[in-house]
Amino acid sequence: MAVHHFQPKHYHNTIGAHEPVLKIADGDSVVTSTVDARGWDYRGESVAGRGNPMTGPFYVEGAQPGDTLAVRLESMVPSRDWGWTFNVLAPNVVDPLAVAALPPLDIVRWSVDAEQALVVLEKPTSGLAGLKLEARPFLGCFGVAPPKDQAISTATSGEYGGNMDYKGLVAGVTVYFPVFAEGALFHLGDGHAVQGCGEIVGTGVEISLDVRFTVQVLKGKTIGWPRGESDTHWFCIGNARPLDQALQHATTEMLAMLTKDYGLTASEASLLLGQAVEYEVANVFNPAYSVVCKVPKAVLSML
Amino acid sequence: MAVHHFQPKHYHNTIGAHEPVLKIADGDSVVTSTVDARGWDYRGESVAGRGNPMTGPFYVEGAQPGDTLAVRLESMVPSRDWGWTFNVLAPNVVDPLAVAALPPLDIVRWSVDAEQALVVLEKPTSGLAGLKLEARPFLGCFGVAPPKDQAISTATSGEYGGNMDYKGLVAGVTVYFPVFAEGALFHLGDGHAVQGCGEIVGTGVEISLDVRFTVQVLKGKTIGWPRGESDTHWFCIGNARPLDQALQHATTEMLAMLTKDYGLTASEASLLLGQAVEYEVANVFNPAYSVVCKVPKAVLSML
Amino acid sequence: MAVHHFQPKHYHNTIGAHEPVLKIADGDSVVTSTVDARGWDYRGESVAGRGNPMTGPFYVEGAQPGDTLAVRLESMVPSRDWGWTFNVLAPNVVDPLAVAALPPLDIVRWSVDAEQALVVLEKPTSGLAGLKLEARPFLGCFGVAPPKDQAISTATSGEYGGNMDYKGLVAGVTVYFPVFAEGALFHLGDGHAVQGCGEIVGTGVEISLDVRFTVQVLKGKTIGWPRGESDTHWFCIGNARPLDQALQHATTEMLAMLTKDYGLTASEASLLLGQAVEYEVANVFNPAYSVVCKVPKAVLSML
Amino acid sequence: MAVHHFQPKHYHNTIGAHEPVLKIADGDSVVTSTVDARGWDYRGESVAGRGNPMTGPFYVEGAQPGDTLAVRLESMVPSRDWGWTFNVLAPNVVDPLAVAALPPLDIVRWSVDAEQALVVLEKPTSGLAGLKLEARPFLGCFGVAPPKDQAISTATSGEYGGNMDYKGLVAGVTVYFPVFAEGALFHLGDGHAVQGCGEIVGTGVEISLDVRFTVQVLKGKTIGWPRGESDTHWFCIGNARPLDQALQHATTEMLAMLTKDYGLTASEASLLLGQAVEYEVANVFNPAYSVVCKVPKAVLSML
Repeated sequence: MAVHHFQPKHYHNTIGAHEPVLKIADGDSVVTSTVDARGWDYRGESVAGRGNPMTGPFYVEGAQPGDTLAVRLESMVPSRDWGWTFNVLAPNVVDPLAVAALPPLDIVRWSVDAEQALVVLEKPTSGLAGLKLEARPFLGCFGVAPPKDQAISTATSGEYGGNMDYKGLVAGVTVYFPVFAEGALFHLGDGHAVQGCGEIVGTGVEISLDVRFTVQVLKGKTIGWPRGESDTHWFCIGNARPLDQALQHATTEMLAMLTKDYGLTASEASLLLGQAVEYEVANVFNPAYSVVCKVPKAVLSML
Repeated sequence: MAVHHFQPKHYHNTIGAHEPVLKIADGDSVVTSTVDARGWDYRGESVAGRGNPMTGPFYVEGAQPGDTLAVRLESMVPSRDWGWTFNVLAPNVVDPLAVAALPPLDIVRWSVDAEQALVVLEKPTSGLAGLKLEARPFLGCFGVAPPKDQAISTATSGEYGGNMDYKGLVAGVTVYFPVFAEGALFHLGDGHAVQGCGEIVGTGVEISLDVRFTVQVLKGKTIGWPRGESDTHWFCIGNARPLDQALQHATTEMLAMLTKDYGLTASEASLLLGQAVEYEVANVFNPAYSVVCKVPKAVLSML
Repeated sequence: MAVHHFQPKHYHNTIGAHEPVLKIADGDSVVTSTVDARGWDYRGESVAGRGNPMTGPFYVEGAQPGDTLAVRLESMVPSRDWGWTFNVLAPNVVDPLAVAALPPLDIVRWSVDAEQALVVLEKPTSGLAGLKLEARPFLGCFGVAPPKDQAISTATSGEYGGNMDYKGLVAGVTVYFPVFAEGALFHLGDGHAVQGCGEIVGTGVEISLDVRFTVQVLKGKTIGWPRGESDTHWFCIGNARPLDQALQHATTEMLAMLTKDYGLTASEASLLLGQAVEYEVANVFNPAYSVVCKVPKAVLSML
Repeated sequence: MAVHHFQPKHYHNTIGAHEPVLKIADGDSVVTSTVDARGWDYRGESVAGRGNPMTGPFYVEGAQPGDTLAVRLESMVPSRDWGWTFNVLAPNVVDPLAVAALPPLDIVRWSVDAEQALVVLEKPTSGLAGLKLEARPFLGCFGVAPPKDQAISTATSGEYGGNMDYKGLVAGVTVYFPVFAEGALFHLGDGHAVQGCGEIVGTGVEISLDVRFTVQVLKGKTIGWPRGESDTHWFCIGNARPLDQALQHATTEMLAMLTKDYGLTASEASLLLGQAVEYEVANVFNPAYSVVCKVPKAVLSML
């Protein structure tokens, strides 16, 4: 149960079977840092190429294809006092006829006070002078090496995780990934200080983070898509386009969880989900969209 | 501000320019009843054709095309002690390859205790013996006459409302509809005692309701899609297939609300939505899916 | 086998259970006329409201729900020497990021020489000075009254036909519609002198037509979607959004045709379609898109 | 203008920056062979892993990011006398409610007579005893190394080409790929003896091929998606899910071709495409679907 302190010296813009930066044991924790989506670090200096540069990968001893890697997100703390966002709705989230009226793309800076958990615009125009958002830091892009020795751009996501941009993946949540490569090869980056559903301006408040996480290998447990557990819910994440397909993946994985892990029949799982399921649109911006299928623990505890 | 008591003698399976059952004034309330999606009334007797038979339409004096009709849902109370659902996930919410493993379609009955606000299976199989859900009654299908003298099946939905099956439309919420016909012609029906997001088994707990609502005409206020106000949120509903397009309609309408009603620029509205928007998948079953774009009042109050 | 000559005095902007303009017998032919999508007639005068005004409906004696109505398109001849189109790609057929660069919407006139079967721009800019297209007149919007006494805008389409804008529905083709109402109630209009696949500028070359068609009732034959027969192919049309769903409807209907009408097993039909099917994108502009699933008669003749 | 004869000894199941098997000059031709989608060679022996194993990559001297690689498909000849297909429609091409009635997945063998250009079932059931299809061999999966040093599974496709399964890519066609890596790194495989539109049983008639192709580097010419030229058409291929997005990519690329290469304004290109465009659904089975946007050379020659 060692705690490793690791400071990255290089980053990857794909998730793949890259040379591990560290080998860690099942149960170990890692204290490390991530740069923001453009490769800007805690000082605001560019130290990596654009497009969600990843810290890692970390090789987890004992993890093999067919296992599941659990990653408990112990803490994610902004390591600088500002972040940035785009300023305009992505053209794919409004009606095609409304696109022409959108303003030109620009970058806007926000102040981030990690202690007060506050995020405000640095130079708000009059309409937003009073806007104060609660910081809820999370990792936008993280996951394990994908199947078939692929190396896939950190712009997108899949069964292996990736750029899911799900605002629910905050500190205290445990995320489960299917393992496709020896050692799982865990990558992480793309921190956000806060974000709405869907990442509909194409960014959260992009920021560098100090991160602590703990890994656990679930030997012989095979899952199809990333799953997670928060204080209040179990959930499954599906990544695909369009939203309909992302929702299908997430629901199918939840059906598998309820039948395999909770012993329900397909009909019992359907009855439960029909009246108790919740969905979140994690992102509707990236090449693969992400939909989260959730069931309250309060409901699961009745089973 | 009269209160009208109206008991329906016939029902419509389309929403359209039907003969009004009652003319009411701006500000009036109506106490009435609805039958369930199959036309079964408070006694469980079949009194209307299948497919979301509608009570109404109610003609609201003064409402004209280009206005908005506000309908405050004062109360929706189950008028019998049981409801029914389907027992199996709709084939369009799971991966195509998972469809063949779904069980055959059947109908399942649930006990509904309106006083205790409890919904339980009448004859649960062992896996769901402990399942108790909180009743949260709402109308699955309601709205105003659509544009162009259309009469549209209550299976689907559009700018005029219709079969949106959004579980957030509970008592206390005010819903706003664009008016397309003289008198608006408000229809309502398809009560659900409770439902998960997405209506993914094709039903909520289908039930007959006693309903009380109050109308208000917003003269000269023109909106594009149904909007709503709850204790905690303002929201806009988009109805279309696929989910991507429903989300586009809902987001475009919210953009219109923020720029026209709150005076934000498109860029300010984008910045706000990007970091504070929430989405709900209301239904992913009907011919038109429904997505809800929400903004917390706590955020709007800062503007 | 009478031939009826009918000149319309009014038009409908929905397809529905409207009062018939004429009752005709099984086997009869009708010679009539249609105005263009904006209601402009053979003189270019506005005689009907915008949005695909329909000639009809024609009541076909003997046609009842569950039957099929065959409509042979004997001839469709432009009744004036000009048509019009929009000038810009619809925003939904290009990448969202490319929408902002499209020019503003305008209307452009084309000369139509029915005898020479030639369509050219009236005032071409230099880049298109040499462009000459072959006229291939067809009806963009036609069909029978939809199910459940609906009246549906002629902007869209469904199982009953409607605004399919399929350029393959030229003279000589027989189209088959499922009958949902007594007398079928056949409507027609929205003539195009020529059009590309997909109707991607939102119009074909919109024009008034002189039309001759012949009806036949196929008693007891039930189909699910419009079908057609040309010199070279049998085909089925699916109408829905997105394209994926339109394609699913068309393919499912073709599967039904091959198994029910040709006696193939589902596996035989699959083997045939897998290696011999053709698809056409009829329209990717209207509220419901249209996809055509085709099988060459040369292949069917081997069965 | 050398002609290289190359027989592969190993294969790749991703398209990426793999070690080149051969360096060739601009203008050179290559005579080589491909195995089928399951890695079965001309003898029917398994020599490579499942999933479209690729021959190559071939490094083309002088090709650099920002250039275009033209690949003329000189010949593709089946190298054995049988191929195989699946026997059942993919569940995503029929209505979700129709999926349960599809037969179980199986593999079926076809006889391929390359000289007579005939493809017939080896053991047809009675319904297909007379079925004879014309062989039209093509490569299902080929392309260049993708951007950002990615290595992407040969199951899918993108701007770099990949598993497009477009039946129009027959001998005589020239395909153009954007170059993302030094030397372009051209991969090829997944031969089909014949296939319908859409690859709707998940395969064409899968077969090993003898292939001859010629490369040409178009220095400084930058394109966004694969393009092609046949005897009769110019076309652009878009790869994505759903079909709507694939069609958007293909149409946007065609718009770019008409404005940049033919000097049309966006409005002229729109007018041309609106009345003359053709679409083909290349595949509606793979993780990314492929749609082809085509313009007849007969039309282009008028410009």
